[in-house]
Order: sequence, then structure tokens, then C-alpha cells
Amino acid sequence: MRISMIGAGNVATHIARTLASRHEIVQVFSRSLANAEALARATGCPCATDSIAGITADADLYIISVKDDAIASVVEQLPGNDAVWVHTSGSVPMSVFAGLRRSYGVLYPMQSFSKQIDVDFADVPMFVEGCDKATAEQITTLAHDLSRSVFSADSDTRRRLHIAAVFSCNFANHLWALADDVLREANIPFSAMLPLIRSTVEKLSQLSPAESQTGPARRLDYEVIQKHLSMLSGDCHTVYDTLTKSIIKKHHTIS
Amino acid sequence: MRISMIGAGNVATHIARTLASRHEIVQVFSRSLANAEALARATGCPCATDSIAGITADADLYIISVKDDAIASVVEQLPGNDAVWVHTSGSVPMSVFAGLRRSYGVLYPMQSFSKQIDVDFADVPMFVEGCDKATAEQITTLAHDLSRSVFSADSDTRRRLHIAAVFSCNFANHLWALADDVLREANIPFSAMLPLIRSTVEKLSQLSPAESQTGPARRLDYEVIQKHLSMLSGDCHTVYDTLTKSIIKKHHTIS
Repeated sequence: MRISMIGAGNVATHIARTLASRHEIVQVFSRSLANAEALARATGCPCATDSIAGITADADLYIISVKDDAIASVVEQLPGNDAVWVHTSGSVPMSVFAGLRRSYGVLYPMQSFSKQIDVDFADVPMFVEGCDKATAEQITTLAHDLSRSVFSADSDTRRRLHIAAVFSCNFANHLWALADDVLREANIPFSAMLPLIRSTVEKLSQLSPAESQTGPARRLDYEVIQKHLSMLSGDCHTVYDTLTKSIIKKHHTIS
Repeated sequence: MRISMIGAGNVATHIARTLASRHEIVQVFSRSLANAEALARATGCPCATDSIAGITADADLYIISVKDDAIASVVEQLPGNDAVWVHTSGSVPMSVFAGLRRSYGVLYPMQSFSKQIDVDFADVPMFVEGCDKATAEQITTLAHDLSRSVFSADSDTRRRLHIAAVFSCNFANHLWALADDVLREANIPFSAMLPLIRSTVEKLSQLSPAESQTGPARRLDYEVIQKHLSMLSGDCHTVYDTLTKSIIKKHHTIS
């Protein structure tokens, strides 16, 4: 397939690099010409542009991978055609295309991407939705070129997946950033925490997260909780307090 | 060494099981006789008791591994002797023994334990403190029987380590429990989230947590944030709101 990449951010970069071996990336658009050129170079694509008017009309597939709140305006600004149009967002409903394209859908890779880190797409669960059966099948075929884990998911399911991913990954990562701040004050490298984090994750293959919960809040150890709170200030204090209350509520409320 | 285990919870169980191959566990005390008996059986120990008066006076080493806020009262209730006394808490200062024992210290395994899950102690960082050089050396030797990662850490450093561990592990795990709740409403098994979580953790070997932060809050995607908040209620809503604000503050405040 001749693919037009609209967007050159983290998700677009990983998708385009993976697809480039089996498909032809004919164009990369980004509001930043430097980003468009970098991704075009990385995928053997001859054309990078920062002009929305310069986006080609003759691709077979358009992959819109821009900031969620820019997707609707990109769809509206570009003329429709008979190609397949997808976006890659976990949060934007497929209906953003309704009435504006004939064949459209969603290709949501449930993963947290950084440009600097190589991700093996083969392990990334891909959630697919199409406006009709034929389009869903085309997008599913493409998804299988990216990953061996392909599921169909409507817009509501996808939104819940995305929320779960924000909790599981973005928020968990922020807790690690706060832990890093706490450790830095004691001159301990964050890497000392990695064995603990890894084994906490590995427990999840055997127990549900609720079953494997441990720590002062789980065992109602108020003396430790108070001592910790007295040593924390600012955001660390607020987050410690909120999560402690939430753990106590989940595990010690009789419902 | 002849070791008396005071406590039969998660940490005590893992320590005693590991030490049993090189040392003699002479007694296990727990307020729950059933727990004391179970750990005694697992370590080839002949004596389990739930009576504090029944704790032997002739061990070489006493390992106090009880709820943090019970440590001081255990130390006070038991008669002192010339053995080495340690507790295993990240939060209780070594001074809990001061004036009450001659040789004492701390042996803190920085790990999150569940009785059901086997942990390879060899990978668990052990943080050691002793009341004097000779005692610190004895405890360090014992720590090396448990792990290849042994560090010395005073009480303040250990407290910060413990706080960082609460953030990194207990709180992160609770986020996974909240994600599990969100997914269950959409009939998606939590296991679908594990590849994402694993790769989020693996990024930390290459980037600091702050550098690898992604997600709607990191990119100030207020439309997604509002949509997510509108779909959440109760604790999920509170936690989403608190962590989103904390991420925005950390990454988008000019200081």
C-alpha cells in the first residue's frame, strides 16, 4: 500500500518505521518540517512537507497520528477521497470521520512510545475498528503487519483501554519520577529501585493487582504513614496522601 | 548461627526460608500460632510459639520482623541479652534498640513480598546498619547470605528508600488495581495491559522516569484529560485528577 503519514511524533515514527519494510511511505506531513524530514529519511520516503495543502491525494491509506485534539481539524481541512483513513488515538471516537470519508477506522497501538526507545511492535496489542466490515478487515490486515496481538474494539472499549493505560503506565511512571526525587535527596541512584519495580510487575502474572497489594496503607500502618507524610512536602505529600486514602478505601471499606 | 524469628509474616517467611539452608532457625514466634507453626515447618524449626514469654533466651541472633508499630513494644517486652538483635523495617530507626540491647542493628530487604510468590533474595537490595563496627560487620555477613546486593544505609537514608519504595511499588500497584477496575467494566482482562507495563519499566534502564514521561498530562492534552475525567467517578476520578495535576506541575511549571 502507498501510505501517507500525517504526523511525525512518537507513535507515527514507530508505526511508519515498522510499516516501511512491507509498504511504501509516499509522504510524511508534520507541522515541523524538521520532524517530517527526519521521519521521511528514516523510512526511505521521498517527500516531507509541513504544508497541509501539500498532502498528496493519491495514497491508498492515510494514517493520522497527531495530537488527539488536532485530529478533527486535520480531517476537516483535507479533501476526502476513496482511500482508507485511520487515526491512531485511544481517545478519539471513529465518528470523527463520519460524513467526511467513505472508508475509515481506527488503528490504536496500546503502548507508550518514546522516539529514543526501540519498541518491538510485534508485542504491542493493536485495537482495530472499521466503519464497515470490509474496511475493518483491511485495517486488521495492516495491524497484523505491525503486531501479532490484534483485537477489535469499538470506540467505548478503546477509551476505557486508554484510561487504563494512562493509569498503568503514565501515572505509574510519574510515581517513579517522584521516587527519583526522593532518592536523589539521599544520593541513591534510581537504578537501585529497578529490581523492586520489576518483581512488583512480575507478581501480576500470578496475582491480580488487588491481591498483590502490599505496603503501609494496605496493612493500616498509620504510624509509618504519618512519619512518611511528615517527611514529604509539595506534590510528593499530596500524591502520597491521595493514594494512601485510596488504598485504604479499596481494601478496608466494608461495602 | 542459631536464629530466633520473631514474626511470621511475608518478610519473615522469605528471610527465614532463605537463611534456613545455612543457619539454624531455633524458634518461630507469631501472635498467630498457625502462622508460627507454618513457618517452623517450612524451615525445619522444632519450636513454634505464640507466647512472648516463651521466646528463647539463648539464640545468637533475633530477627524482629513484625508490623512496624509493634517493633518497639516487642523490644521492650523481651529481656535483653548479648545476642545480636535486628529488625527488618525500612521505617523504624535503629535507635528503637538503644539502651535496651548491647548489639543491634537493621537488616532491611528493599522488596515487596507476598507469601504466595517466591522471591529470589539474591536480587533483593539489602540495606544494613549496625550500632557499632563489629555488629555492622556481623549483620553485613548475614545480609550476604541473603543477597548479592548489600549496602550500608543509616536510618534517614533507609527511611527515604522506604518512601521511594512505597511510591514505586505499593502506589504503582494500586494504580494497576484501579486500571483493572476500569478494564473489568469493558470485559478486558488485565493481562492485556502487561506488555505495556513491562515496556514502560524497561524504558527506565535507558531514561530517567522524568525523561520517559508520556501521556495526556505530559503533552497538555486537556481535551483527552476532560473526557477521561468525565468517564470516571469515585477514587478513579480523584486519583486521575491528582496525578494529572502533579505531572503538569512537574513538567510544565517554569521554576
